[in-house]
Amino acid sequence: MRIEAIAIGTELLTTGRVDTNSVWIAQRLAGLGLGFHRKSVVGDDREDLRSLFLEALDRSELIICTGGLGPTFDDFTKELWAEVLNAPLVEDPVIRSTIEVFFQSRNRPCPPSNFKQALVPMGADALPNPIGTAPGIFWESPQGFPHARIVLLPGVSRELKRMWEDQVEPRLRSLAGRPTHTLRMLVGAVGESALEQRTAYLREKHGHLDWTILAGLGLVELVARSADPAALDAARLDFEAELGLDRVCTGSGSLEQTVLELLNVRGETLALAESMSGGRIAALLTGVPGSSEAFLGGAVVYSARAKAALAGLSTAFLTEHGTVSELTTHALAEGIRARLGADWGLSITGNAGPTEDKDGPAPLGTFFMALTGPDGTACQANFFPGERADMQTRSAIYALDFLRRRLA
Amino acid sequence: MRIEAIAIGTELLTTGRVDTNSVWIAQRLAGLGLGFHRKSVVGDDREDLRSLFLEALDRSELIICTGGLGPTFDDFTKELWAEVLNAPLVEDPVIRSTIEVFFQSRNRPCPPSNFKQALVPMGADALPNPIGTAPGIFWESPQGFPHARIVLLPGVSRELKRMWEDQVEPRLRSLAGRPTHTLRMLVGAVGESALEQRTAYLREKHGHLDWTILAGLGLVELVARSADPAALDAARLDFEAELGLDRVCTGSGSLEQTVLELLNVRGETLALAESMSGGRIAALLTGVPGSSEAFLGGAVVYSARAKAALAGLSTAFLTEHGTVSELTTHALAEGIRARLGADWGLSITGNAGPTEDKDGPAPLGTFFMALTGPDGTACQANFFPGERADMQTRSAIYALDFLRRRLA
Repeated sequence: MRIEAIAIGTELLTTGRVDTNSVWIAQRLAGLGLGFHRKSVVGDDREDLRSLFLEALDRSELIICTGGLGPTFDDFTKELWAEVLNAPLVEDPVIRSTIEVFFQSRNRPCPPSNFKQALVPMGADALPNPIGTAPGIFWESPQGFPHARIVLLPGVSRELKRMWEDQVEPRLRSLAGRPTHTLRMLVGAVGESALEQRTAYLREKHGHLDWTILAGLGLVELVARSADPAALDAARLDFEAELGLDRVCTGSGSLEQTVLELLNVRGETLALAESMSGGRIAALLTGVPGSSEAFLGGAVVYSARAKAALAGLSTAFLTEHGTVSELTTHALAEGIRARLGADWGLSITGNAGPTEDKDGPAPLGTFFMALTGPDGTACQANFFPGERADMQTRSAIYALDFLRRRLA
Repeated sequence: MRIEAIAIGTELLTTGRVDTNSVWIAQRLAGLGLGFHRKSVVGDDREDLRSLFLEALDRSELIICTGGLGPTFDDFTKELWAEVLNAPLVEDPVIRSTIEVFFQSRNRPCPPSNFKQALVPMGADALPNPIGTAPGIFWESPQGFPHARIVLLPGVSRELKRMWEDQVEPRLRSLAGRPTHTLRMLVGAVGESALEQRTAYLREKHGHLDWTILAGLGLVELVARSADPAALDAARLDFEAELGLDRVCTGSGSLEQTVLELLNVRGETLALAESMSGGRIAALLTGVPGSSEAFLGGAVVYSARAKAALAGLSTAFLTEHGTVSELTTHALAEGIRARLGADWGLSITGNAGPTEDKDGPAPLGTFFMALTGPDGTACQANFFPGERADMQTRSAIYALDFLRRRLA
């Protein structure tokens, strides 16, 4: 079934508001095995709307319109649909009395403009609004368009959600196909196009699935959709075998959740010494509820003084080995691990600018990460020049992934 | 000028991602006195896209397409536009060598699929991508559509923003109406509606300006637009007088930049002890180039062990005063200041869950921030229950604003 969302309101075209209703509806549709093939946002302009309604009738079987059902002059979604479909508007006495009760119960007079909300296009059903005054509309097979279904809902999210769950979803359930299942895999520290090449043979083998590859900074998400859970499971096994340790997790998890789970399973703890990443690893880990079980804390060692006072590095050592080097990173990981009595010490140093250090030992974009644990210390050098924020975030992701690979 | 946004990507139709690029572009267009009349989101489906491209050519003078410029099989925005407009694709040698250099500088082999990104439709201009491999396209008056302009940009937000500012906006400026000037003021730790009420008389006085109030977590942005710079300047003076110390900055600055500038002017340094905010203050500060001048570093004290080892709090002290309390926060600020020999010590403790502590001394949403400096120590308690991420971010913003007010 081809389904289309139309969000109506000039405020959705400016910076004031984002259309989040259609994102919520997409989630509910997925639960029915359905999904949007198009979404549009248009302002309160009769001509723009009229042409969009006609196009939508032509190409879609289910049209979900949100907004423009209020009592004011710039609300005319229902009236325009009635005009486009040549249907007269008729007052629904039940809706009218619901509106009267709504105002009476709040001890407010009912403005006459609100009664236009009780009008329903002939042939359509009104959907009562239990928490507002704007009723919705469910219109099946309007004259001339036997395969179309039109749903009109208010733009106010809590009203829309309540009406969708109670009234729209039950009507759609009978139309829905088989529910869609999703397979998601998070892959660590591998480029998007490298991952694509490497898994091309598997996507071909499982070509009946619907594939998407989404790149982030240092992480790639691989998503497959299908109505057939057994087909997804077969793909999952193949990808897990191909990706091996590169796979962070399958399902809805994140890198930081995975790292914390691995630590919790082993009953081990972590301490950090962050220079280049400036607290970003700590922020990622502490974003996970319950992270304090395995994450003891860390130091943001943004100066020689902090490297000395919080991780025990002497000025002489720093002078000899520099602030960005393998040995310094090493010493930071060991220093913070000892200070906090943690099982693992993880550290980062690097150059995210503003100094270029072009011919020096650490040009812009260089970073070292070191990990020390029960079985010794490892260090890795990386080079990814770019925007300051990207370099800082990437260094944090890479270091977490470095730890994950060691724990897994 | 009729302007239309088209966001391309199946992931934008499901629950995975929301199209926020068009919201950002709408803001930039407003600065040029322009705005969208329609926005669409479509999946990676050739037929859906082809029909939308043709409709858009028919009704719009400027079409801004985002996404689908990557190297993978499901990226074909550029190829499809070339097909719709009957333009052959030609390799741009400059773009090709940029892509080669991008991979060489990272010591990675360039996958052959990336070279399709160097193809440009004949008659269109390539827009180099300084921080990624997908170049954009600016296509003015393609054959058969003399009034159309088509802009293709990558879907990755940071690449899109950079290319928009540096390359697209200068080209659009000549098409735009009168340039709009902007007055922006950042206001700290004041509620949006309180600020709206408090400044209503001034917005009325300067009612010929176009006003927007944008609320963030713990910060409010006040924006006025006008073609008349003198009118904006008069409003600026009135607002600066009314807001006093509540104003963080005027212009494009951020709270963290303002704090670092104030420290630099005084030649003073800062050390942090973060518990509830888990490294978020450090991450904000280190995001500013040159921050290491004033920011010495800090401790993320997410356990009793870290509070002891990094900020010198004894187990006995913590047992007596608890992990979330005024006295503990106090001691953390003083401890970290002494350890790093900083002029200022700033600390946060609080409860961001998952434990509720409903009847205890620190129910969910409570946080304490303490600041110690050359002229003594101050502490403040706050209570903002909400989502975990919001509570953590808000605590970081409030603490930075607490420091700013003391420095200003």
